[in-house]
Amino acid sequence: MSAADSSFNQNLCVILVRTRNPLNIGAVARAMANFGVSQLRLVAPYDPAFREARSAVGASELLADAEVCQSVAEAVADCTLVIGTTAATNRSVSLPLITLHEAAPQIAAAAHTGKVALLFGSEKRGLANEDLSYCHWLMRIPTTQQAPSMNLAQSVVVVLYELARTWNQAPAAVESEAIPAADPPAKMQSLLRLADVIHETLECSGYYSEAAAASSEEQLRRLLLRMKLTEADSEIVLGMFRQILWKLRTNSPG
Amino acid sequence: MSAADSSFNQNLCVILVRTRNPLNIGAVARAMANFGVSQLRLVAPYDPAFREARSAVGASELLADAEVCQSVAEAVADCTLVIGTTAATNRSVSLPLITLHEAAPQIAAAAHTGKVALLFGSEKRGLANEDLSYCHWLMRIPTTQQAPSMNLAQSVVVVLYELARTWNQAPAAVESEAIPAADPPAKMQSLLRLADVIHETLECSGYYSEAAAASSEEQLRRLLLRMKLTEADSEIVLGMFRQILWKLRTNSPG
Repeated sequence: MSAADSSFNQNLCVILVRTRNPLNIGAVARAMANFGVSQLRLVAPYDPAFREARSAVGASELLADAEVCQSVAEAVADCTLVIGTTAATNRSVSLPLITLHEAAPQIAAAAHTGKVALLFGSEKRGLANEDLSYCHWLMRIPTTQQAPSMNLAQSVVVVLYELARTWNQAPAAVESEAIPAADPPAKMQSLLRLADVIHETLECSGYYSEAAAASSEEQLRRLLLRMKLTEADSEIVLGMFRQILWKLRTNSPG
Repeated sequence: MSAADSSFNQNLCVILVRTRNPLNIGAVARAMANFGVSQLRLVAPYDPAFREARSAVGASELLADAEVCQSVAEAVADCTLVIGTTAATNRSVSLPLITLHEAAPQIAAAAHTGKVALLFGSEKRGLANEDLSYCHWLMRIPTTQQAPSMNLAQSVVVVLYELARTWNQAPAAVESEAIPAADPPAKMQSLLRLADVIHETLECSGYYSEAAAASSEEQLRRLLLRMKLTEADSEIVLGMFRQILWKLRTNSPG
C-alpha cells in the first residue's frame, strides 16, 4: 500500500481557509502531489491570490480542480471528521488539542470509512473560533516555543508526510481499528442540518436568553461533534426535533 | 526533552548546496527555527540570492549567523556523519539509500556523540555525484512516483520534523544506542586528510592508470566512509600512509 493508495487519496481533503498568498497555495498543491492527496478546497480565498496561483507556470491539475467554497460549512459538508490545525498550545477554545503524531492513526482509521477534512487557517491569523466550531479536534505540530508558527505550506507538508507514514506503516492495524462499515459516522452536512433544526427548536422554545443567542450556534455544533453520532442516529434525532419544532410552531399563539 | 534540547541543536547542521532562490533560503531558516535547529551552512550559494534572503524583512538571527562555505568538504569538515538527500529511488551512485523514517533513529543516535550534516542540493539538480562522495548515506522522503520531487524548504521541514519526533519520542532508547564516547567516529576532516595522503601515496606508487585517476578520489572517499573509522584509527592509518608516502618519495629516482 502506498501513499497514492486510492482511499488515502479519496478520503483526505485539504481545506485552506482565507489564504492570502498565491505562492502558498501553489506550494500546498505541490506538497499534496508529493504525498498523493489531490482534493483541495479553498474557503473564501483572497481572489487575486487564487487566480494567480491557478494560472502560474507549472500549476497542477490539482489546482485546476480545486473547489472554491464560500464557507467552512460548505467545505466540510461531506466529511465525517474535521480537524483544525493550530500553532498555539493554550487556546481558549474547548476542543481536544492533540499532536499530529497522536492524531495520525485516528485520522487514518477514519479515512477508511469516510472523508476527513484537514483545515488550515490564514497565514496571519490561523483559524477563527467560528471555523473551529466545525472541528472535532484541534491538531498541533510540536514546534519550539521560541518559534511556534510554521509557514502554511510547510505545515501542510508535515501533516501529509506523517499521515502517509502512518498509513503505509501499519495498514492492517489501521484497518482493524476502523469503524465497521455498517455504522458510519454522520456526515457534517447531516450534523449541520440537525444543528439548525435544534437551534430553531430551542429558540422557538425560549431556551436562549438574548445575550446567549449569539454564541449558541457555535456551542451547539461543538456539542453535536462531541456526541460522535452515526449517520443513522443523526437522522433519527433530526426527525425528533423536526417533530418538536412543528409542535412548538403549531402551538404558538400568533 | 524537547526539540530545542541543546545536543539536538548543537549536533545537527543543515547544509544547503548551491541554492538559487532567496525565498527558499528564508523558508529553510524558518523551518529550522520551528524545530530548534540553528546551524545553517551554505555551500556556494547563488550570491544575490543569499544577500537578498539575509536582508529580507523578518530574516532571522539564524540567517545572520549562517556560514558560507566554498566547498562541501569545508562544510562537513567537523561532522562525523554526513547524509545526502534525494528524491530519486534508483540512483546509480553506490551509496546506501534509506528512507527518512529508517534513518531518523540512527541520526539521533549519532547526534549524541558528534555532529551530523544534512545535505540538500540545489532546487533544479539536487546533489551532484561529487557532493555525494562526501556522504555516508543517501536519504529519501517517501513521495509518490507521480510527483517525487519536493520543494527544497518543504523537504528540510519534513526531515527536521521526523528527527525532532524521533528525538522526543524515545530519548532513552536513542541514547542507549549511541556509540560509546570513548570511541568517537572520525571527523570528516580527518578522513579527508587521510584520503588525500592515501591518494598521493597510490599515485606515487603508480597504482592508478591515467583513465582511472579522474574518478579515483571520489571512490576513495566512499571507501573510507564505508569503513566507519574511529577518530583514533583514522590517525593511525594516516600515520601509516604518511610513512609509506615518505618512503616512496625518498626511493624515487629523480
